[in-house]
Amino acid sequence: MDDCIFCKIAAGAIPASILYDDGAVLAFRDINPEAPVHVLLIPHRHIATLNDLEAADAALIGQLFLVARRVAAELGVAESGYRTVINCNRDAGQLVFHVHMHLLAGRELGWPPG
Amino acid sequence: MDDCIFCKIAAGAIPASILYDDGAVLAFRDINPEAPVHVLLIPHRHIATLNDLEAADAALIGQLFLVARRVAAELGVAESGYRTVINCNRDAGQLVFHVHMHLLAGRELGWPPG
Repeated sequence: MDDCIFCKIAAGAIPASILYDDGAVLAFRDINPEAPVHVLLIPHRHIATLNDLEAADAALIGQLFLVARRVAAELGVAESGYRTVINCNRDAGQLVFHVHMHLLAGRELGWPPG
Repeated sequence: MDDCIFCKIAAGAIPASILYDDGAVLAFRDINPEAPVHVLLIPHRHIATLNDLEAADAALIGQLFLVARRVAAELGVAESGYRTVINCNRDAGQLVFHVHMHLLAGRELGWPPG
């Protein structure tokens, strides 16, 4: 998608602080961190929202969590804990319409989650 | 797991307000709702935390999102929006050690998510 900032990051056309990339899933630091650890994880393939997932995408979305686990371990927050958040559409505050997971950690996270 | 409340709900031994069940994934209303729509989605199989996911679990975790999309549509919040949250360990406030997704919707959700 020509106008998608996350597609551009995945393509290397926009720089980011990349933590992990296997060609299917990319993890990079959020430029507006809300916690000591705030990482975004995206599929390389453009999927606009969770509503656009198809049955065949299940393994890819699951892969985001396997990468989240790996990144959390590498950043030393797997045991202390981390929160994963995926927003869909307006009420959730989705700003970039390319599915992305927020991984937040490094402090006590309050409840409710927004 | 004998002492896991979500395993007991999945087995029908503890009642819950169930919205969806296909034998692999179960969705039911949170008894302490933090939004007009607050649903929990769990795999039937006991997995304690996101750190305990194995590669073979990717499709199952992805399936949680396919069910979330379906439940959101059925409850009329797919287009207005919804937030999905999975907590891992203490800093995230994980209270039940059986992987579960929170789906929140029906109001504007703030940022940061906790």
